[in-house]
Amino acid sequence: MKRKSQDFVSGPSLRSLSISMGKRARLRRLLYGHGPRNGTMMILPLDQGLEHGPADFFPNPAALDTSYEVRLAIDGGYSAIALGIGLAEKHMAEHAGLVPLVLKLNGKTNIPDDAEAVSPLSASVLDAVRLGADAVGYTLYVGSPRQDVGIRECMKVRQDCERYGMPLVMWSYPRGRAIEEKGGKGTLYAQDYAARVAEEMGADVVKLHEPAEDVELVPEPYRSLRETAPQRVRRVVRSAGRTLVLFSGGVKDDDAARVLRKVKLYMDCGATGVMFGRNMWLRPMAEALDLTRRVRAILSRYPR
Amino acid sequence: MKRKSQDFVSGPSLRSLSISMGKRARLRRLLYGHGPRNGTMMILPLDQGLEHGPADFFPNPAALDTSYEVRLAIDGGYSAIALGIGLAEKHMAEHAGLVPLVLKLNGKTNIPDDAEAVSPLSASVLDAVRLGADAVGYTLYVGSPRQDVGIRECMKVRQDCERYGMPLVMWSYPRGRAIEEKGGKGTLYAQDYAARVAEEMGADVVKLHEPAEDVELVPEPYRSLRETAPQRVRRVVRSAGRTLVLFSGGVKDDDAARVLRKVKLYMDCGATGVMFGRNMWLRPMAEALDLTRRVRAILSRYPR
Amino acid sequence: MKRKSQDFVSGPSLRSLSISMGKRARLRRLLYGHGPRNGTMMILPLDQGLEHGPADFFPNPAALDTSYEVRLAIDGGYSAIALGIGLAEKHMAEHAGLVPLVLKLNGKTNIPDDAEAVSPLSASVLDAVRLGADAVGYTLYVGSPRQDVGIRECMKVRQDCERYGMPLVMWSYPRGRAIEEKGGKGTLYAQDYAARVAEEMGADVVKLHEPAEDVELVPEPYRSLRETAPQRVRRVVRSAGRTLVLFSGGVKDDDAARVLRKVKLYMDCGATGVMFGRNMWLRPMAEALDLTRRVRAILSRYPR
Amino acid sequence: MKRKSQDFVSGPSLRSLSISMGKRARLRRLLYGHGPRNGTMMILPLDQGLEHGPADFFPNPAALDTSYEVRLAIDGGYSAIALGIGLAEKHMAEHAGLVPLVLKLNGKTNIPDDAEAVSPLSASVLDAVRLGADAVGYTLYVGSPRQDVGIRECMKVRQDCERYGMPLVMWSYPRGRAIEEKGGKGTLYAQDYAARVAEEMGADVVKLHEPAEDVELVPEPYRSLRETAPQRVRRVVRSAGRTLVLFSGGVKDDDAARVLRKVKLYMDCGATGVMFGRNMWLRPMAEALDLTRRVRAILSRYPR
Amino acid sequence: MKRKSQDFVSGPSLRSLSISMGKRARLRRLLYGHGPRNGTMMILPLDQGLEHGPADFFPNPAALDTSYEVRLAIDGGYSAIALGIGLAEKHMAEHAGLVPLVLKLNGKTNIPDDAEAVSPLSASVLDAVRLGADAVGYTLYVGSPRQDVGIRECMKVRQDCERYGMPLVMWSYPRGRAIEEKGGKGTLYAQDYAARVAEEMGADVVKLHEPAEDVELVPEPYRSLRETAPQRVRRVVRSAGRTLVLFSGGVKDDDAARVLRKVKLYMDCGATGVMFGRNMWLRPMAEALDLTRRVRAILSRYPR
Repeated sequence: MKRKSQDFVSGPSLRSLSISMGKRARLRRLLYGHGPRNGTMMILPLDQGLEHGPADFFPNPAALDTSYEVRLAIDGGYSAIALGIGLAEKHMAEHAGLVPLVLKLNGKTNIPDDAEAVSPLSASVLDAVRLGADAVGYTLYVGSPRQDVGIRECMKVRQDCERYGMPLVMWSYPRGRAIEEKGGKGTLYAQDYAARVAEEMGADVVKLHEPAEDVELVPEPYRSLRETAPQRVRRVVRSAGRTLVLFSGGVKDDDAARVLRKVKLYMDCGATGVMFGRNMWLRPMAEALDLTRRVRAILSRYPR
Repeated sequence: MKRKSQDFVSGPSLRSLSISMGKRARLRRLLYGHGPRNGTMMILPLDQGLEHGPADFFPNPAALDTSYEVRLAIDGGYSAIALGIGLAEKHMAEHAGLVPLVLKLNGKTNIPDDAEAVSPLSASVLDAVRLGADAVGYTLYVGSPRQDVGIRECMKVRQDCERYGMPLVMWSYPRGRAIEEKGGKGTLYAQDYAARVAEEMGADVVKLHEPAEDVELVPEPYRSLRETAPQRVRRVVRSAGRTLVLFSGGVKDDDAARVLRKVKLYMDCGATGVMFGRNMWLRPMAEALDLTRRVRAILSRYPR
Repeated sequence: MKRKSQDFVSGPSLRSLSISMGKRARLRRLLYGHGPRNGTMMILPLDQGLEHGPADFFPNPAALDTSYEVRLAIDGGYSAIALGIGLAEKHMAEHAGLVPLVLKLNGKTNIPDDAEAVSPLSASVLDAVRLGADAVGYTLYVGSPRQDVGIRECMKVRQDCERYGMPLVMWSYPRGRAIEEKGGKGTLYAQDYAARVAEEMGADVVKLHEPAEDVELVPEPYRSLRETAPQRVRRVVRSAGRTLVLFSGGVKDDDAARVLRKVKLYMDCGATGVMFGRNMWLRPMAEALDLTRRVRAILSRYPR
Repeated sequence: MKRKSQDFVSGPSLRSLSISMGKRARLRRLLYGHGPRNGTMMILPLDQGLEHGPADFFPNPAALDTSYEVRLAIDGGYSAIALGIGLAEKHMAEHAGLVPLVLKLNGKTNIPDDAEAVSPLSASVLDAVRLGADAVGYTLYVGSPRQDVGIRECMKVRQDCERYGMPLVMWSYPRGRAIEEKGGKGTLYAQDYAARVAEEMGADVVKLHEPAEDVELVPEPYRSLRETAPQRVRRVVRSAGRTLVLFSGGVKDDDAARVLRKVKLYMDCGATGVMFGRNMWLRPMAEALDLTRRVRAILSRYPR
Repeated sequence: MKRKSQDFVSGPSLRSLSISMGKRARLRRLLYGHGPRNGTMMILPLDQGLEHGPADFFPNPAALDTSYEVRLAIDGGYSAIALGIGLAEKHMAEHAGLVPLVLKLNGKTNIPDDAEAVSPLSASVLDAVRLGADAVGYTLYVGSPRQDVGIRECMKVRQDCERYGMPLVMWSYPRGRAIEEKGGKGTLYAQDYAARVAEEMGADVVKLHEPAEDVELVPEPYRSLRETAPQRVRRVVRSAGRTLVLFSGGVKDDDAARVLRKVKLYMDCGATGVMFGRNMWLRPMAEALDLTRRVRAILSRYPR
């Protein structure tokens, strides 16, 4: 049974004593001050330009100009927009305060392959403080042969988050040669492990992908599992423990109805919300705002 | 002859002058303030979710929720519970003070293989201080080709432990390509070396595995040794010197009587106690509490 | 639509609030205090002696003496001259204030190949402050297998730039084994990605190469693009977002008319200016000054 | 001609001005306050438990308990005992002041091979200060492919030694793939180089092995040298310059007379003393004390 | 045309404003206070014991005792002696002030091959300050695959030099697999590049080897150059820009007349002086002093 997020950030319970005042204030802003304002979250991420290059914007060239996403985040009433340091500095000053900022702290290009993936910091928690952000984002490549680099760096980010009262949103992404040999990054095995790692590393919020069916290569007991999609989603939400789970949208799906069914599935299974990028900003503005409105309508039915 | 642990932490002897006041206070809490309270220790560890993934919880899904282990540790009257930073922050605030916390400082996933294993820090001694922990845990991969990384990091942890009066519990684990070529991590050769390394590195407490018989691949003089299980256990306890030895339980054994015989064996041979995880929290709560009670009963017969 | 650069540095608009006073002062000096003084920029770079060795000066041995380039920069009325620490310290004291200095912070020799290229720092932002520079230059090898080293170092440079009000000019250069396998560093794919990376990393100004046509090896959707030179240049300028774009001149072109046509092309397509080295200082002084004058004349027609 | 060590530490000569007061005080304690007290030194080392594992204690199981070596050092009247941090903290508090402590700062297991040997720090000079040690020990793996790691770390140790007035005893050990390809670590070539490196790195005292004859693989001019054992020992003592030379005992030699002949050889050839471990503590206590007494008798005949 | 060095260090010209007072004082001591005292320099280096081992002293065993070189430097009236930290600390206290000290900060053994050569620091600029040195020496392995390590470290040394007013003498040495594949470290191509790198890195003085003829393997345009020895020497002096050039002597040449002809050649071609080690201290003292006197006589004819 997933806890109510109010337990976590609102009440005067003993449990919430472990959250610093600054972190509580910022989390409340994301959960109750913006977006659906009911303890759920919808975040608009824009780190794909760094992670995949401008190729991602080809289907909707207008989205190459970050103003597009900023406008969508504000007009669509998102809980937050997630940007790297360059975009945040250049685009958010004129909109400061209209939509919360999740400053994405690390990232890389996809030009070299991901066999030994590592995601270097390009910004710090202090940069986030300076820019008035309400959370930071950190990508951890779970299971990469160079995971030690990421875990150590993540520790420092978490400690700075503690120091400055900044919530930590973790992109918990299985990646690298070893996970490929064990069935790939999308399997239930991989996502389930990633969910637990986020909880163990001290994330406040975790971004996951909807787990696919397991394949022959994954280790037992996953190999023998036969679970439905809802069972799989519930499993990873449970594995994330007290970490709030947001699901990623992945590549754009032209079928809006299918996108909405996904959102409903995630919320039914205990997610706190979604972090959809390409499925939003690759749509023409009117269409994107409409889809946003309908996603928000679903989230509104799941107060946490 | 194994010393009495009181020599170490209780008396006003010259020897104990080398233990700082803070460390002595915390060690006493673990040895005499909680658990069997007679100088022995039983610690409930929960780092398997990070080290092995959620797969470890499949036999008892309830254990996926850390509340389960926390309840077991409190109701079972353990000397301490060992948790990583994420679990500690999210679960211990509401139970602070009911059971001591050993904050596990480092860890990794088992997705990449262990040929060049290194266990990165995900928390610091200062985190442990902040959370009111009574000890920190550190895994050293003894004999890994990257042992220099671990030894250096361990030095810094130990120095911080000194500074803040925090006992250091070392998971002293032979690991990596080289130990595999010399017979594997479970042999007497490997465990005996690991015991000595913990003593040399300045651990206060060491977690070891019961040493298996040596095999053809181990170096001399171990290869020619023919020792019984008690002889082997005694040997590694002696090699640990003045470091208090806890034995690990390893994978779950359904035969509770066999588990208890193991405990008796370890205590007979000079151990300070046990650190059993899966053998406890993979059992249904009533059964786990019962086994805990019986382990405690054994430890009660070995005041130190 | 490329923004007017005045929006960025001159006006009292909200947007410009994100630029610190020091950075604004220095950027204004480059854009309006020197060079064409109309919001465009022409910078004379001299990092080739380190990057390629003295071989680059063979066609015009006089240029081996840095006095040559300094004189050209001053007499030609450049917006700035870009020098590494050694040349700056040894040549700019006597000319301090006559032409702004862009202190190039990192660099390397081309003796080892570029498969895993990394460009180490040889100077710091504080060195630039000490020397009275008006900007720093930093080379990022986009997509190198060791990109994590560069990105992390770039973060620290950017943070120091923030602290000391120093504009950051990024040499955003695709480099390394992986980009070679994807068609090479000169393709539209590579340059377009590099432009975005500069924007994402928080550069104020980016130096790019004119993108060549894509080749068979580049990934989709670039492989299927069929764009004219102006379309390609416009594309990378757009991908650079709010980062001011300067185009590199590359190897010397003896046909001055062709050089000038290039300049016109870049300015037509939204560039802020050019950073031509060998095309300038490999010419005899009179010829170099004449070409400089004609480039400036073109830039003068594109107030920003 | 080897200098008198009094020149170094006792007299008011200009030369001794380069030794800080703290270092002089501690060196005097080792040379004149303990051991033979005539400017020679006999140190009892116990780092083999870490370097080789408990296997080293099999011939004399009593020696596994560090109390054995501590007792031998005190009762035998050694100049000092050399221990790692764990052993020092756990065993020296009760004996503080009875025998000087050389805190061994770095070490490793011999589980991985030594092809790229590096010896990580497990303690600091400040630890030595805190424990009241009179010197620190540092192993430098001369000629290892990773020698840069060791040399840099050694610099920091030396600088801290300077800061805190702590003498630096260097275990100068040729090691790694490259020295194996050049004839191995025991040759005159290897030991002679190691002696010079200690002098160049700023050691106060160096521990060397008696150089063996050179073999076919060593480089010229060593390959063609035909020197007797005394000539070889004299050569390495000369190569150590003003660094005081202690010779190692290596594996245990059951023939005590041969051990003593070695001691005499070393002292005849200019050594300051010996650092014998296994040759001492692998003997039964009475025998060890007797051998100690006889070594001391030899050293007494070589006042420095 | 090589500038007069007085321009650099003596006059009140604007140019010299870029040199800090401390650095100017120390450079003057080297150029005008010791040695030929006319703006030229002759430095006696002794880093070969570390770089090549004691083998280098075999032709003149007396030189193994550093007193030999110190006496030669003082009695021969050298501009300075260059020593590593160990030799400096142990030998210069008694001679402090009689001959300036260049503290060599980094070095390594030649036991591993040079394919990926890196020269680690064994001393700091602060060590040089503490010892009253008048300059520091730093070896940069130009073009090594690990050049990034050296360049970064060199930056820190240069910045400390700036902070403490310490001149930086760079041993600018092409080294590593890549330069071997391009014709080797001794070619004009290699030395010419090395000269430029020293200038770019901010060296005050550079030590180079006389460039040999280029070979088939060097890149164009060097491969096609056909230059005489004087032309080659002039070329590298020009490429060093405003960095004062000292030429190395390399292995001992028994023909003193040939050595002197070399000195004359270097001075004719614009060098500031020489840094001859083995060609000096491998000679018997009387012969070494005589050769020193004759070298000084040559330098006296080239006031700078």
